[in-house]
Amino acid sequence: MYSKISESPIFRGINAGEVAHILNLVHHQIKTYEPETIIAYSGDECINLYILIEGSVRGEAVDLKGKVIKIEDINAPDTFAEAFLFADENNLLVNIVTNTKTKILIIYKNDLLQLFKSNKKILENYLNITSNRFVLVTKKLKFLSLKTIKVKLVNYILGLERKNEGKQHFLIDKTQEQLAEYFGVTRPSLARALGEMKDEGLIEIKRKEIKILDRNSLVRMLRT
Amino acid sequence: MYSKISESPIFRGINAGEVAHILNLVHHQIKTYEPETIIAYSGDECINLYILIEGSVRGEAVDLKGKVIKIEDINAPDTFAEAFLFADENNLLVNIVTNTKTKILIIYKNDLLQLFKSNKKILENYLNITSNRFVLVTKKLKFLSLKTIKVKLVNYILGLERKNEGKQHFLIDKTQEQLAEYFGVTRPSLARALGEMKDEGLIEIKRKEIKILDRNSLVRMLRT
Repeated sequence: MYSKISESPIFRGINAGEVAHILNLVHHQIKTYEPETIIAYSGDECINLYILIEGSVRGEAVDLKGKVIKIEDINAPDTFAEAFLFADENNLLVNIVTNTKTKILIIYKNDLLQLFKSNKKILENYLNITSNRFVLVTKKLKFLSLKTIKVKLVNYILGLERKNEGKQHFLIDKTQEQLAEYFGVTRPSLARALGEMKDEGLIEIKRKEIKILDRNSLVRMLRT
Repeated sequence: MYSKISESPIFRGINAGEVAHILNLVHHQIKTYEPETIIAYSGDECINLYILIEGSVRGEAVDLKGKVIKIEDINAPDTFAEAFLFADENNLLVNIVTNTKTKILIIYKNDLLQLFKSNKKILENYLNITSNRFVLVTKKLKFLSLKTIKVKLVNYILGLERKNEGKQHFLIDKTQEQLAEYFGVTRPSLARALGEMKDEGLIEIKRKEIKILDRNSLVRMLRT
């Protein structure tokens, strides 16, 4: 079992023998769950680090009508719910349900702190995992922000097109500064969104004149 | 000076005397910068924790035309760039520029690990700060996702309205499942977006019939 545990990112660089020794010194639990067992509920305070030793779990949200929707699968030997373990608001946002028969190593956060103290590699691995998760979420946020600006631009451009019915080219009635302010975004973000839309062959801009090159793709952007 | 340093969130619960003692045992730098000095460049690897002792800095992005845009101010006694210090991709996304005369405590990340080892409170504070930052970014992402779904819905609803010119009520031509799939979002997210739009008095939905209650607000949502 310890060789499986040692494959988890949190124990990277630590061999099975060392893992056995380390876990001997700190309180932990190893639990086995049958398939389709709810092991934690949305809203529960997240006070444990969960390390999947065997099997697979999923995050599940429940909609207003009580219908259950899968959000994400997590497979051994990954950890889960680790990134907000030490936050002031540390409530789970989803139910955690087993997909298969699942074996999980559970370490209470105060014991994890003890582990961090006794083993520098575990601390570094934890910091690396959570930092990477932070970078990932920040990138997603940046991507979605950019996409949101593009959708605003498409709405604006199609609105201009309706006002200028029949014309191939039409005038943008605002400067980039004014547009950025109108959309409530920064100018570099707006410029980047416009630049990408030009590069993707959706529109052509010459000074203040705009021409729609790929109307179908623009319309599709309003929904996907 | 140590009393100022002890006010930083990273030293919460540690008094000035202890801070002086702790810093004596670990390598660190205290640097003073004149106003309007660039202390780190976008793209630089972030390998130090920066703790503002006095003064204020700002994050600055540079747009395609070289124009500089302020992103955020950070004031003493806060830390900055701490959340991706241990990530694989740890490059700064902005320039860091001093607003005022600024004094900064700089701790290299390996020395910070040393501090974590020697003082449990510092580690706990760091984990708390970065976990909270993670929760904040995750919430922003969730908010923006929901807003994005609402914008998609507005586009769809206004499109229906155009197809049903002159009618007060019109039929939604898709089930919620179909709509969610059409937008590429989960059904609970879609239901939440629809629910909020009803609560805000923008639309009325009865079974599959929809009525626009506040057209102006809907149109405004397409740009802000």
